[in-house]
Amino acid sequence: MQPYELSLTAAAAAVRTRQLSPVELVDSVLERIERVESRLQAYVGVRAEHARKAAREAAHDIAAGRHRGPLHGVPMGLKDLIDVAGTPTSAGSRVRAGHRAQTDSTVAARLTAAGAVLLGKTHTHEFAYGLTTPQTHNARDPDRVAGGSSGGSAVAVASGSATFALGTDTGGSIRVPAALNGVVGLKPTYGLVPRHGVTSLSWSLDHVGPITRTVQDAALVLSALAGHDPRDPASLATPAVDYRPAGGASLAGLRIGVPRTYYFDHVDPEVEAAVRRAINDLQALGARLVDVEIPMTRYVRATQWGLMVPEATAYHEDTLRTVPELYQADVRVLLEAGALMPAVDYLRAQRSRTLMRQEWGRMLEQVDVIAAPAVPATAVRAGQETITWADGTVEGVPDAYVRLSSPANITGVPSLSVPVGHDAAGLPIGMQLLGRPLREDVLFRVGHAYERTRPAHEHGRPGGDPQPR
Amino acid sequence: MQPYELSLTAAAAAVRTRQLSPVELVDSVLERIERVESRLQAYVGVRAEHARKAAREAAHDIAAGRHRGPLHGVPMGLKDLIDVAGTPTSAGSRVRAGHRAQTDSTVAARLTAAGAVLLGKTHTHEFAYGLTTPQTHNARDPDRVAGGSSGGSAVAVASGSATFALGTDTGGSIRVPAALNGVVGLKPTYGLVPRHGVTSLSWSLDHVGPITRTVQDAALVLSALAGHDPRDPASLATPAVDYRPAGGASLAGLRIGVPRTYYFDHVDPEVEAAVRRAINDLQALGARLVDVEIPMTRYVRATQWGLMVPEATAYHEDTLRTVPELYQADVRVLLEAGALMPAVDYLRAQRSRTLMRQEWGRMLEQVDVIAAPAVPATAVRAGQETITWADGTVEGVPDAYVRLSSPANITGVPSLSVPVGHDAAGLPIGMQLLGRPLREDVLFRVGHAYERTRPAHEHGRPGGDPQPR
Repeated sequence: MQPYELSLTAAAAAVRTRQLSPVELVDSVLERIERVESRLQAYVGVRAEHARKAAREAAHDIAAGRHRGPLHGVPMGLKDLIDVAGTPTSAGSRVRAGHRAQTDSTVAARLTAAGAVLLGKTHTHEFAYGLTTPQTHNARDPDRVAGGSSGGSAVAVASGSATFALGTDTGGSIRVPAALNGVVGLKPTYGLVPRHGVTSLSWSLDHVGPITRTVQDAALVLSALAGHDPRDPASLATPAVDYRPAGGASLAGLRIGVPRTYYFDHVDPEVEAAVRRAINDLQALGARLVDVEIPMTRYVRATQWGLMVPEATAYHEDTLRTVPELYQADVRVLLEAGALMPAVDYLRAQRSRTLMRQEWGRMLEQVDVIAAPAVPATAVRAGQETITWADGTVEGVPDAYVRLSSPANITGVPSLSVPVGHDAAGLPIGMQLLGRPLREDVLFRVGHAYERTRPAHEHGRPGGDPQPR
Repeated sequence: MQPYELSLTAAAAAVRTRQLSPVELVDSVLERIERVESRLQAYVGVRAEHARKAAREAAHDIAAGRHRGPLHGVPMGLKDLIDVAGTPTSAGSRVRAGHRAQTDSTVAARLTAAGAVLLGKTHTHEFAYGLTTPQTHNARDPDRVAGGSSGGSAVAVASGSATFALGTDTGGSIRVPAALNGVVGLKPTYGLVPRHGVTSLSWSLDHVGPITRTVQDAALVLSALAGHDPRDPASLATPAVDYRPAGGASLAGLRIGVPRTYYFDHVDPEVEAAVRRAINDLQALGARLVDVEIPMTRYVRATQWGLMVPEATAYHEDTLRTVPELYQADVRVLLEAGALMPAVDYLRAQRSRTLMRQEWGRMLEQVDVIAAPAVPATAVRAGQETITWADGTVEGVPDAYVRLSSPANITGVPSLSVPVGHDAAGLPIGMQLLGRPLREDVLFRVGHAYERTRPAHEHGRPGGDPQPR
């Protein structure tokens, strides 16, 4: 096994016990990038020399007895919406040509302080406003979409080109690419991870979170990211928590909600089967399954788009007026549509969100976790624009990919996507676990217990090599 | 001196020491109402029998040794936007015909628990969406506007028809009628007084607060109103405070900001002279005057209207569609205009508010209080639609009346309006004191010190009798 194949948890243990030096680890990942990057295109750019230098410093610190914790010397990718001082934040857009961030975002600063080593910035759908990341190729099948908008981060982690990465999630942009590439993605509780220095898509729905190869890894990264920052007006003043899931494989006493409505409508049969198998595995671990009725489902789409579209347009108002031609066509049309939306429709979406939060709060009193598909279909072919469901309904790919993610963005509840197998074509399938606000610990407990039921080769190991078809 | 003429502070002292019974006090105020109400029209309706019964119970409680504090047995008026269980909340509108509140608003419940006696609901401009309260007449001159939207409350207090009253303030609706009728009005810090059960005009700008005849009186009422209520999403979790200003008349050590910009532009010369005299009086009490530059003044109007107009329309969306003809013409046109406002304009106003709050925060690090005119002109004649300034500029009356009030609504800082004399026609002039969030105590200290420099007959005594012209 090569160092690039190690999960963050395993790499951290090897670094801590000095079985593995940060230099070896970073070199192994850089070599892996050299081997797969031309095919996958996960990175905007790789700072190999910077990373090697940081790895040497990390090794030196450890030799001097300064070990900063589980991220020390671990190589990471950051979605290119996240500011790193002295480097451009391209946001996947020509609009940002010549950009250069003055200071670190809060999350970049926290990960650097925790000892993580930046490999480079990863591709994003332009300004995070889309669900495919057309620059990047799916880690399992280069003819398929990476998913988005954090496609570069998910593909980097899935392919072994980063031990972990950060993404952002406004309507599924962490969970969708995580599911489509077979890795773990967490959209934390709204306000738990500060967004200062992260380019906004829709501030009332935006979240930053980790993409990793195991659930434990996600918990390690969240422990470094979480905590109040007054520079993000939505940042919660919550005490610091160590999120690492404690041992026990039993889920006895936990109530897992299985949606009777919404989450299994218009879902690919192979996806549904894999998720229901995973839910049965959770039951076998001792959890009690409880049918739940998802509230206000007919408002989800209007609320998500009603909030996101005008907030996105407001953010881009100046450049949309001065340099509209620099945007990609798909993003420009959404931004221009946003300028036409009446304020009362936005306010109606805000009121609907308030009600939806209350109703979800009531539902989440009945259960500890809700388990559901993360995305209704596996990765589509690049260029495919619609999905046709068994009943003949045709749905746009962005709508389909957002559909099951957006309730967690609207309500702010945490959602963890974990891989639960593959379809017949070998494409990954994700299950999302949704929980109560600030109860990421419960999601990690369930996700980790599930993960341990799986054969070792099915999780925690990078893919990214061409699959037999 | 009749009991109705007593300030709340004086009445409370007399009740506490049993020199005055709640029954005498309430009877005196009810007699006063009988004498002046036909001319002033402050009340939607007076519940004389209810009030007498409550007064007898209050007297009985005191006789039994159950004294609930300074509001015990004191008669009050509540603006008719404030729910009282079992009674209609008309909001000054035909739209509310047949309405009946099921439960008390938080403020009504708190005042009742503190022993206050409800006389009746006072007139409001329809749904608080205007600054004149056309149903009601100015307490000093019945041919002039009461101001609004809490016109009924201000006129009731100014005329001796209530010992105190509550109003609401979205763009000046407490301070404008208080200033125009020669009484004290407080718009508290945003979130300090819960709005549960109070009809909303624009939830991000709405405040509830007291209208009284003295500054001390306002502090007594605020002490009963303030405190967290989770049913108002904007309610602050602040500890309870006793706001009664402590003795000392000296203002030594206090820095009072005198605006170099905005607050003295397009202000009637008599209003400016009275406010500057009052500011000099504060200096004579030991305060240090500091010139301040009001930030972002050219954004005030667009921000206030940009937030208020769509929020108001969103609140009325259903009835605007079903029964538009029931609204008054002035309110209907504003509500219908709100339906046309783009969401990006609303979001621009939100962002401008965020910046304005930050800039005001910086300015308020330099001074303890800002002193300025409350309203740029005294009460206009009923039906007058515009004000012409010395430079020939013509301004609509609503714009002029909102102009100096709205910065405190946008930024959420507390603002206290105190009477500072009269113009040549005998019409009252108000000065507003603006302070740091949650520092109402400082405003009360300054306002109370100022008040004590004035001849006794100029404050704390009701008017409402026709003035010699």
